[in-house]
Amino acid sequence: LADSHFIGIDIGATLIKMGVVTREGALVSRDEARTDEINGPSHFVKIAGETFERLLVEAGVEKRAIGAVGIGAPGWVDHQRGIVHELTNIPDWRDFPLARKIEETLGLSVFVDNDANVMAVGEMLYGAGRGYKNFICLTLGTGVGGAIIIDGAIHRGANGLAGEVGHMSIDTQGRQCACGALGCLENYVGNRSIVARALELMGESPTGGSGSIIYEMAGGDPANITTKTIADAAAKGDAVALEVWRETGRRLGSAMAGLINLLDPECFVVGGGVAKAGPVLFDRMKEAMASLAMNKLGRSTPILEAELGEHAGLIGAATFAMLSSERD
Amino acid sequence: LADSHFIGIDIGATLIKMGVVTREGALVSRDEARTDEINGPSHFVKIAGETFERLLVEAGVEKRAIGAVGIGAPGWVDHQRGIVHELTNIPDWRDFPLARKIEETLGLSVFVDNDANVMAVGEMLYGAGRGYKNFICLTLGTGVGGAIIIDGAIHRGANGLAGEVGHMSIDTQGRQCACGALGCLENYVGNRSIVARALELMGESPTGGSGSIIYEMAGGDPANITTKTIADAAAKGDAVALEVWRETGRRLGSAMAGLINLLDPECFVVGGGVAKAGPVLFDRMKEAMASLAMNKLGRSTPILEAELGEHAGLIGAATFAMLSSERD
Repeated sequence: LADSHFIGIDIGATLIKMGVVTREGALVSRDEARTDEINGPSHFVKIAGETFERLLVEAGVEKRAIGAVGIGAPGWVDHQRGIVHELTNIPDWRDFPLARKIEETLGLSVFVDNDANVMAVGEMLYGAGRGYKNFICLTLGTGVGGAIIIDGAIHRGANGLAGEVGHMSIDTQGRQCACGALGCLENYVGNRSIVARALELMGESPTGGSGSIIYEMAGGDPANITTKTIADAAAKGDAVALEVWRETGRRLGSAMAGLINLLDPECFVVGGGVAKAGPVLFDRMKEAMASLAMNKLGRSTPILEAELGEHAGLIGAATFAMLSSERD
Repeated sequence: LADSHFIGIDIGATLIKMGVVTREGALVSRDEARTDEINGPSHFVKIAGETFERLLVEAGVEKRAIGAVGIGAPGWVDHQRGIVHELTNIPDWRDFPLARKIEETLGLSVFVDNDANVMAVGEMLYGAGRGYKNFICLTLGTGVGGAIIIDGAIHRGANGLAGEVGHMSIDTQGRQCACGALGCLENYVGNRSIVARALELMGESPTGGSGSIIYEMAGGDPANITTKTIADAAAKGDAVALEVWRETGRRLGSAMAGLINLLDPECFVVGGGVAKAGPVLFDRMKEAMASLAMNKLGRSTPILEAELGEHAGLIGAATFAMLSSERD
């Protein structure tokens, strides 16, 4: 059956994933490689070609069943020309015409976009965003990514730069961000900041003073503390962990209230590793958003947890390929 | 000629303006009333009806030449149902079906929207926004209003609340805003805040210590100090005035950088009384925006001064009526 399946490629900081996804959003075969094992752009293209052949065999799908290929890449992507400008974790990657190179190798149409944008498309069709045509997607991880869906399409803006929710300043005299600005949201609610705040609250002596169980739950090594450790500690009532999530939820909820005042979305869809903290984070976000949005109608804007989980990027990329190829 | 002219009504905090505007954006007759002389919604409708007849005579235009009526109102407006929920400066105004009442009185189609939204439409067709289909409009006055134009249309959002650029928080632990949130942009760059900051920098003794000429330029009465005084003082090199504009421009430029990262507009159009400060404000905004936006393409986003001047609201309202009636 022609165009019954689509290929998704999710380029992450740690892993590159590739998979075959049905028109209904089901992932039928997949593979992954470590990002730091890729030598450069040409190596990436070669690996993608080999993986493609293997995945088709594994999925029992013929090549003519594949409608198109979608790729989600972190950072600055020129969607229209199919260029990924920078990939900091792959050497020698600079202004690489990824869409064209993969097209030449696979003989299929290829669409490239920012990773947060393709995730948002996946959530819109098969995840928490089903039924919504105007929403804002946040991905909470090391960085804070975002995507804006307006009238059922990705809002890219004049230069394809739109959606960087993590780079709205929440304190114009705040922390220096790597992007050059001060006080960007990402510097307060990214996972490193969350862990750093827990350590700060635990004080000089993480084993004692504060009475927090986080240290113990991390096996006695502060380097093992992750946002999951802090979420687990909060579930057991740990005061430090609860305070960390309260502050994080408050900042995110405040940013969301501002986004409601500015864009008035139908809902928010929130995913990424940090979102796995679950209710302890979502409840705090909702409280803050509801107390800070200026209009009573805005205060009931739903904040939904993303549904596509660890393969959201992969399914999103394939879904994005489907939508893009059918729009052309 | 049928539909050659449109009526605009601009409801402001101080003045209500009504005018006849041609299809080409020219204001051919106009009148105004003090907002505080209006007794209530019914009185407003009655006055509008009387003024309408007078304006037609004055303009030498027959009623059948009028295509539609557009109204811009401050605050919360339900555009779809034509309801203006609140007008704090007119007594007993609550959830008033303004469009229907004016339609009944004038026998013409009536379209109502937020004042910043209709101004943006005017600037798009006849002002600084000509040629742009995706931009953000800011109106700097006592409050900070805003409007977002996407694909040539007002972005209203799920509940018609969108565009409140002044109610994005720029400091999550900042000043208490009347809207209930903390640190909204409006509390730092609204005209009262600008004047208050000048007084603060002038210190306890505005006549002496700081050496500022602002006090003298205000005729020796601090109550006379306006943003215009501070702009005039800056033009003469007054250090306090220059510092006030530097801070104001920095905060606005920072907010604009965040808006570029989020929405990536083609340009900004900035109007309102505070914008009359001119280059001393615009240069500082541009510098801050260019140093803070994360992507080099975004850093060259034009920041344009609104062109329609004191009748921007009136011309915008009429233009908005024209676009709305032709879309239906």
